[in-house]
Amino acid sequence: GRIGFDEAILCEQKTVPQIAEIASRSRDTVGRRLFTRLSAEKFAALPPDLCGAMIYDAQSRTAVLGATAPGAGPPRVAIVSAGSSDANVVAEAQATLAYFGQSTQKIEDVGVAGIWRLLERVDEIASMPVVIAVAGMDAALPTVLAGLVPSFVIGVPTSTGYGAARGGETALSAMLASCGPGLTVVNIDNGYGAACAAMRFLRMADRVRQAEVPLFS
Amino acid sequence: GRIGFDEAILCEQKTVPQIAEIASRSRDTVGRRLFTRLSAEKFAALPPDLCGAMIYDAQSRTAVLGATAPGAGPPRVAIVSAGSSDANVVAEAQATLAYFGQSTQKIEDVGVAGIWRLLERVDEIASMPVVIAVAGMDAALPTVLAGLVPSFVIGVPTSTGYGAARGGETALSAMLASCGPGLTVVNIDNGYGAACAAMRFLRMADRVRQAEVPLFS
Amino acid sequence: GRIGFDEAILCEQKTVPQIAEIASRSRDTVGRRLFTRLSAEKFAALPPDLCGAMIYDAQSRTAVLGATAPGAGPPRVAIVSAGSSDANVVAEAQATLAYFGQSTQKIEDVGVAGIWRLLERVDEIASMPVVIAVAGMDAALPTVLAGLVPSFVIGVPTSTGYGAARGGETALSAMLASCGPGLTVVNIDNGYGAACAAMRFLRMADRVRQAEVPLFS
Amino acid sequence: GRIGFDEAILCEQKTVPQIAEIASRSRDTVGRRLFTRLSAEKFAALPPDLCGAMIYDAQSRTAVLGATAPGAGPPRVAIVSAGSSDANVVAEAQATLAYFGQSTQKIEDVGVAGIWRLLERVDEIASMPVVIAVAGMDAALPTVLAGLVPSFVIGVPTSTGYGAARGGETALSAMLASCGPGLTVVNIDNGYGAACAAMRFLRMADRVRQAEVPLFS
Amino acid sequence: GRIGFDEAILCEQKTVPQIAEIASRSRDTVGRRLFTRLSAEKFAALPPDLCGAMIYDAQSRTAVLGATAPGAGPPRVAIVSAGSSDANVVAEAQATLAYFGQSTQKIEDVGVAGIWRLLERVDEIASMPVVIAVAGMDAALPTVLAGLVPSFVIGVPTSTGYGAARGGETALSAMLASCGPGLTVVNIDNGYGAACAAMRFLRMADRVRQAEVPLFS
Amino acid sequence: GRIGFDEAILCEQKTVPQIAEIASRSRDTVGRRLFTRLSAEKFAALPPDLCGAMIYDAQSRTAVLGATAPGAGPPRVAIVSAGSSDANVVAEAQATLAYFGQSTQKIEDVGVAGIWRLLERVDEIASMPVVIAVAGMDAALPTVLAGLVPSFVIGVPTSTGYGAARGGETALSAMLASCGPGLTVVNIDNGYGAACAAMRFLRMADRVRQAEVPLFS
Amino acid sequence: GRIGFDEAILCEQKTVPQIAEIASRSRDTVGRRLFTRLSAEKFAALPPDLCGAMIYDAQSRTAVLGATAPGAGPPRVAIVSAGSSDANVVAEAQATLAYFGQSTQKIEDVGVAGIWRLLERVDEIASMPVVIAVAGMDAALPTVLAGLVPSFVIGVPTSTGYGAARGGETALSAMLASCGPGLTVVNIDNGYGAACAAMRFLRMADRVRQAEVPLFS
Amino acid sequence: GRIGFDEAILCEQKTVPQIAEIASRSRDTVGRRLFTRLSAEKFAALPPDLCGAMIYDAQSRTAVLGATAPGAGPPRVAIVSAGSSDANVVAEAQATLAYFGQSTQKIEDVGVAGIWRLLERVDEIASMPVVIAVAGMDAALPTVLAGLVPSFVIGVPTSTGYGAARGGETALSAMLASCGPGLTVVNIDNGYGAACAAMRFLRMADRVRQAEVPLFS
Ligand SMILES: Nc1ncnc2c1ncn2[C@@H]1O[C@H](COP(=O)(O)O)[C@@H](O)[C@H]1O
Ligand SMILES: Nc1ncnc2c1ncn2[C@@H]1O[C@H](COP(=O)(O)O)[C@@H](O)[C@H]1O
Ligand SMILES: Nc1ncnc2c1ncn2[C@@H]1O[C@H](COP(=O)(O)O)[C@@H](O)[C@H]1O
Ligand SMILES: Nc1ncnc2c1ncn2[C@@H]1O[C@H](COP(=O)(O)O)[C@@H](O)[C@H]1O
Ligand SMILES: [Mg+2]
Ligand SMILES: [Mg+2]
Ligand SMILES: [Mg+2]
Ligand SMILES: [Mg+2]
Ligand SMILES: [Mg+2]
Ligand SMILES: [Mg+2]
Ligand SMILES: [Mg+2]
Ligand SMILES: [Mg+2]
Repeated sequence: GRIGFDEAILCEQKTVPQIAEIASRSRDTVGRRLFTRLSAEKFAALPPDLCGAMIYDAQSRTAVLGATAPGAGPPRVAIVSAGSSDANVVAEAQATLAYFGQSTQKIEDVGVAGIWRLLERVDEIASMPVVIAVAGMDAALPTVLAGLVPSFVIGVPTSTGYGAARGGETALSAMLASCGPGLTVVNIDNGYGAACAAMRFLRMADRVRQAEVPLFS
Repeated sequence: GRIGFDEAILCEQKTVPQIAEIASRSRDTVGRRLFTRLSAEKFAALPPDLCGAMIYDAQSRTAVLGATAPGAGPPRVAIVSAGSSDANVVAEAQATLAYFGQSTQKIEDVGVAGIWRLLERVDEIASMPVVIAVAGMDAALPTVLAGLVPSFVIGVPTSTGYGAARGGETALSAMLASCGPGLTVVNIDNGYGAACAAMRFLRMADRVRQAEVPLFS
Repeated sequence: GRIGFDEAILCEQKTVPQIAEIASRSRDTVGRRLFTRLSAEKFAALPPDLCGAMIYDAQSRTAVLGATAPGAGPPRVAIVSAGSSDANVVAEAQATLAYFGQSTQKIEDVGVAGIWRLLERVDEIASMPVVIAVAGMDAALPTVLAGLVPSFVIGVPTSTGYGAARGGETALSAMLASCGPGLTVVNIDNGYGAACAAMRFLRMADRVRQAEVPLFS
Repeated sequence: GRIGFDEAILCEQKTVPQIAEIASRSRDTVGRRLFTRLSAEKFAALPPDLCGAMIYDAQSRTAVLGATAPGAGPPRVAIVSAGSSDANVVAEAQATLAYFGQSTQKIEDVGVAGIWRLLERVDEIASMPVVIAVAGMDAALPTVLAGLVPSFVIGVPTSTGYGAARGGETALSAMLASCGPGLTVVNIDNGYGAACAAMRFLRMADRVRQAEVPLFS
Repeated sequence: GRIGFDEAILCEQKTVPQIAEIASRSRDTVGRRLFTRLSAEKFAALPPDLCGAMIYDAQSRTAVLGATAPGAGPPRVAIVSAGSSDANVVAEAQATLAYFGQSTQKIEDVGVAGIWRLLERVDEIASMPVVIAVAGMDAALPTVLAGLVPSFVIGVPTSTGYGAARGGETALSAMLASCGPGLTVVNIDNGYGAACAAMRFLRMADRVRQAEVPLFS
Repeated sequence: GRIGFDEAILCEQKTVPQIAEIASRSRDTVGRRLFTRLSAEKFAALPPDLCGAMIYDAQSRTAVLGATAPGAGPPRVAIVSAGSSDANVVAEAQATLAYFGQSTQKIEDVGVAGIWRLLERVDEIASMPVVIAVAGMDAALPTVLAGLVPSFVIGVPTSTGYGAARGGETALSAMLASCGPGLTVVNIDNGYGAACAAMRFLRMADRVRQAEVPLFS
Repeated sequence: GRIGFDEAILCEQKTVPQIAEIASRSRDTVGRRLFTRLSAEKFAALPPDLCGAMIYDAQSRTAVLGATAPGAGPPRVAIVSAGSSDANVVAEAQATLAYFGQSTQKIEDVGVAGIWRLLERVDEIASMPVVIAVAGMDAALPTVLAGLVPSFVIGVPTSTGYGAARGGETALSAMLASCGPGLTVVNIDNGYGAACAAMRFLRMADRVRQAEVPLFS
Repeated sequence: GRIGFDEAILCEQKTVPQIAEIASRSRDTVGRRLFTRLSAEKFAALPPDLCGAMIYDAQSRTAVLGATAPGAGPPRVAIVSAGSSDANVVAEAQATLAYFGQSTQKIEDVGVAGIWRLLERVDEIASMPVVIAVAGMDAALPTVLAGLVPSFVIGVPTSTGYGAARGGETALSAMLASCGPGLTVVNIDNGYGAACAAMRFLRMADRVRQAEVPLFS
């Protein structure tokens, strides 16, 4: 495609026949495809031959049609999360990157209410060029990270929490209003989008000849 | 009064004659009074004899009628802020506590985008029974503090920032949705309210015979 | 822990295997743990040996792993509610305090639409250093209380009501905008958070030597 | 008119020429007219002959063209307010009722943060068939009143307060979500609308032959 | 009671045991009681002897314990609705008034998208001292009515519609922002509250000796 | 242009130099241009030669560069408004249509709080193929119109009113949620957009050979 | 009817008996009727004779009572959609137009994230006098279309997407704020309303004698 | 600093003395500093020696203390905007990148209402590794771009527009809800943040050895 990677199929508002038709067409043409936000019920309701050609993962709610092979090299993307309630969003980001051939480094449950757990892992995180920071509720994790590491940080607000968490709206706003300079943000629970951004980063990185251009400060 | 301390006069939506009348009546009866959210323009427009009987502080936008004497003892309330843009809210809390005879410990500009600045001061903060944590934008400071110190933490969201900061709404929601257990919150920019809560704390503390009741964990 | 009491496990967005794993690990290490927002369905789905080691309470939706022993002394925390529809939030606060060894005084259904019911109980409430005030809809109860008693008041807005009650948002905003000085607030339906704040209060109270520092007014 | 009283002119978004034209036409036809939300600046900019024919009141921001004569009988409408910051809304309701020939009973600054001030005046309020209850911030006053008196209560939320008061939105929502049965509400700061509702009440009251129809309970 | 009629029990957030306990206590003391927002499921789950002592109405979702006898006189309250989707709110208002001994006049499905249907009924509506106007979506009905009839108009916004109707929020705001002078409003879907307001009106009406006080205009 | 008419210049967030540059370029190329939301201050600050080449209209806040000649034929677009506070939005729609050579029929101040004023003009309105309906606050006018006339109705919500009118948001939502079938809506205060929609209508109308295709009902 | 076509019955908040009654009455009087937002469950629960007299379409959730005959002529309305998740809204618009005797041209899945798919179809779309543009999420499709074709464009925001898509609110706001001149909008998911607007267009088109009135630019 | 570049000073809510103090301290220590959201009035009010040491730019509202030297190499960051009303946000991004030694490629006024203007520049944009896409109102530009170019796209919503544009909220939500895969977003009007993200990208790019890791698709 024009943008260097093919689009996934967002299944949430699609019917089973619609999904089946897309899967069938993909199998016969490009040969592989990623399906996101696919419930176990819908997956099970697909025609058996399509089910058989896909690998379903319940936690990330993704299905992969065709071959996937995580890259052989060391991971260049860290996925860091605040709590174990954020696990399915972490999984969606990881599954998407795996589909594109990228291995990832997961560092979970290091939210800032227990900041020492995060501090113990900072060097590990700082060694990664790209960091996907997943957090709900007050979502302070990406802000703190953006102040601690030079990596490119992509914040993913999650819909965990209740009341004033407002289904992820507070986490989203907090990341956007953050005083952590250069923090970028994607939609609530959008692990897929964060992974796509990471892919853009990796593909564009070799176009940059950083060393040639001096940076102030 | 019934609650152990007298109420301040919120001047924002009052006219100069209304404020003058209250000040005049207070001088003739109880003898002292705190005025909050009083603009320099309104203060200057009060009758000269009332102006003369009051001490105005521009940063906190407070005026005190009658005597004030910060207590002689060591401070038991810390006022911690994320950035220098929060200075007027810090000042309002400090002025209110001073009016009630309490000295305070100020620790400013230790927001979590530069978490190491906060970590250097943690022991000092942890030594205070009450901590007023003032922060705007993503307002991660009170959450981090509530996870680091055993003190009673009162969060004050501020209206600093722009766009998704939404005049303090994001900071407010982030504090409420926080995963820092036992963090309490007051209204946006309400330094006065946080100081009153601290006063309630100090007055009630001697009613508690903590030592007699064992705590689990 | 650093803050003097261990954190509870918020089960709402966790899967049964995640909860089982945490419970199992807690049993083998610290020996006790509080679980909140745990549905009866999820509790029943835990492995039998874990279920047997926990005591589940349907109204508060909490489960306790390990020993709990409410303190022997008289209660120092009152839990006051506006209506019987707020009962489950009252129960969560009570269960959390019981887990930490604190007995509580419950005073329910004294909302301000029938203010005489509240006025009959004011002296009783005023005798408690800490008051957790639970109310939904217009949530006037904490404001009225904060004007009547010198106690430290922690307001808990609840999601009762319909239409303009907006799932607790109106109660939350009303408490924050309240003219009752020194009223503090936690998240909607957050009985757990109010109880943790009460715990911070009780633990910090003996650090304060109130008598030594004179208070104005 | 069809509804028994003529409409006032809302001047806020009208230009001076538009207002002048309406005033001039009213003078030449019906002979009298009420103008609301008219700033002192706009009033002063009207043609001198129109200014001379109108009586302007700065606090209520109303002007009356033509004769006004408050009724000779005792007041049947009480206007009760929470704080002195609500004074201009109280004034607008009072001015409107005066324009329609009705005297009123004002009871100000009896908000529920100092509930004893309200309780001292309850009998006086309960003696009035109609009560206009004006309050901002958490706006608990109308709820408490609706539980204490049998009068017809019309709540007017005001835009006083800051932060979570949200320009009167919180007061409005709190009144609507109120558990005080039979409380009715008008728009934020709408003293005029509350007065018109009171006028409808007074005009319709003699159509009701209450004594003939027994009421349960 | 202090306010002239007894309060109903709002069952929505109460459990079956809570409702049973209140019903049982009411039967043994005051003898009668109204229950609102009671689902058919909850009603059926009450102990048989309580069910037998109550009359349940599915459309209004109300149950009455004890005797009800609509007054013998002609109705003085009209209940007017915009569409047939508003029928359950109309029914709640009617059931509440019937509980208090008042008959009502229903005029349904006369929303303003077909204004001629409304115009045919205007004289009938104008003959009633009190009009409860029930409407969802854009809720223009109460505004149009308030301009056409001198009656006291109580608007009840309903949660009908979708999208920008926002569960009744748009109808509520439209009524509050209405240019129909003297229109009063209650909460979304609050037929009970509108009926209570009508009861206040009827009870207070004989306190007013309207004839003695002349009205301008 | 591709769409049959050239775009206007929205001046609100442009600086005077930016506007001058566009005006100058337009004069030298296409020869004519419409400027909207241009304040009198900014217009006066333009270079004299540009000012001289433009005709400014204060009420609509528009300026026209180059020739304008309203069409000779009878108007085919009615602009109907609820109140005189909506006059500047009416003027913007009218000025835009005049710029495109269309005459219009204005029918102002016929809002539904006085529905008889509207009913007197219905036949006149129904004779126009396109109706631009301008209304603020509760904005019931377009709904009522859409039920009364077969014309194509374009609703323009306005920012008149206060409180729950929320700067036009309520009017906008009410129009969108309307039960008047086939009512279309543009942005708040967007008289320009409504006029452009009317232009699209007029240009496309002759492409339709309506008579050839029978319609049911 | 007055407006040239009969209204559909919105079934969402109606009970089965209510729908049955309307269908039965329609059959006996006008003979035909369109039902919208009718779930398959409700349709199946109607009396068999009514079911038999209606044709139900699951995707559009519509039922037609009586005859339908799409016009013989070429379609004059295009229905363009951004993604396959918008298919049910497309179907509702199509079904409504078919009920009124109009054939339509469907062009689906041409959202702007793959703009080249749209560009390939522009000439086809531009040949239609009326374009219904259906899109959710960021809803950029109608804006792009309004800049590319001279047709009358009616935007229908859909509730597809998650998080910041906010159930269609973002799509709605984006269309309203659009810089595409003359774009009109209907409620979220309101395919029915867009079709009614198209019907108004077609019926009014022959009233316009476009050729006689010259247009500038 | 830890993150590879020093933080700028956000001046909006700081007083002139606060800014002066920071500038003075910076001059004496690190020697250079960027100031953002600095009004011309505040800059002029700084002590003359500080003014003299800084270069102020009115359009971007930035001031630079100390040396700036845009890099000698070709630009690797494109700044693309929808309209000329977005110019000041474009300027802030450009000034920030210049401060860090980076040249940029500006491509302005290519919003999607005139999509052909954008299409003419696509190859130029696609040649840049990083694209900052600045747009207000419906903000469709970044979505379209993310579908057309493989570059890393950072969307900056702006507060241009009125009504439903809601000060940039609609643009922000539209970008977040976008179906353009891998689009990242920063706060409303936050040109500074987008530039910082671009800097993180450039600095991290040489850590990636893209060529070594094969990508699927
Ligand atoms: N989980 C996801 N979250 C957000 N966008 C997605 C997700 N999965 C797929 N998409 C995008 O959503 C769009 C789906 O388009 P369509 O399948 O035509 O409705 C594509 O642009 C995908 O890249
Ligand atoms: N009912 C509750 N409401 C709010 N916070 C809670 C509740 N129960 C536990 N928590 C806190 O939520 C956090 C849960 O973190 P985790 O279990 O890692 O997702 C901890 O900080 C707990 O103190
Ligand atoms: N359907 C209803 N809508 C609104 N308020 C109600 C309704 N039914 C009862 N109420 C009121 O809600 C309150 C219920 O209090 P409680 O039963 O103690 O929770 C009482 O003041 C009732 O008058
Ligand atoms: N799907 C729909 N969306 C919006 N309005 C509808 C829809 N179907 C019918 N309507 C309109 O909604 C109104 C329904 O009125 P009623 O059936 O009396 O509640 C009528 O004006 C219909 O034109
Ligand atoms: Mg955790
Ligand atoms: Mg700082
Ligand atoms: Mg009760
Ligand atoms: Mg007061
Ligand atoms: Mg109907
Ligand atoms: Mg008028
Ligand atoms: Mg697609
Ligand atoms: Mg442009």
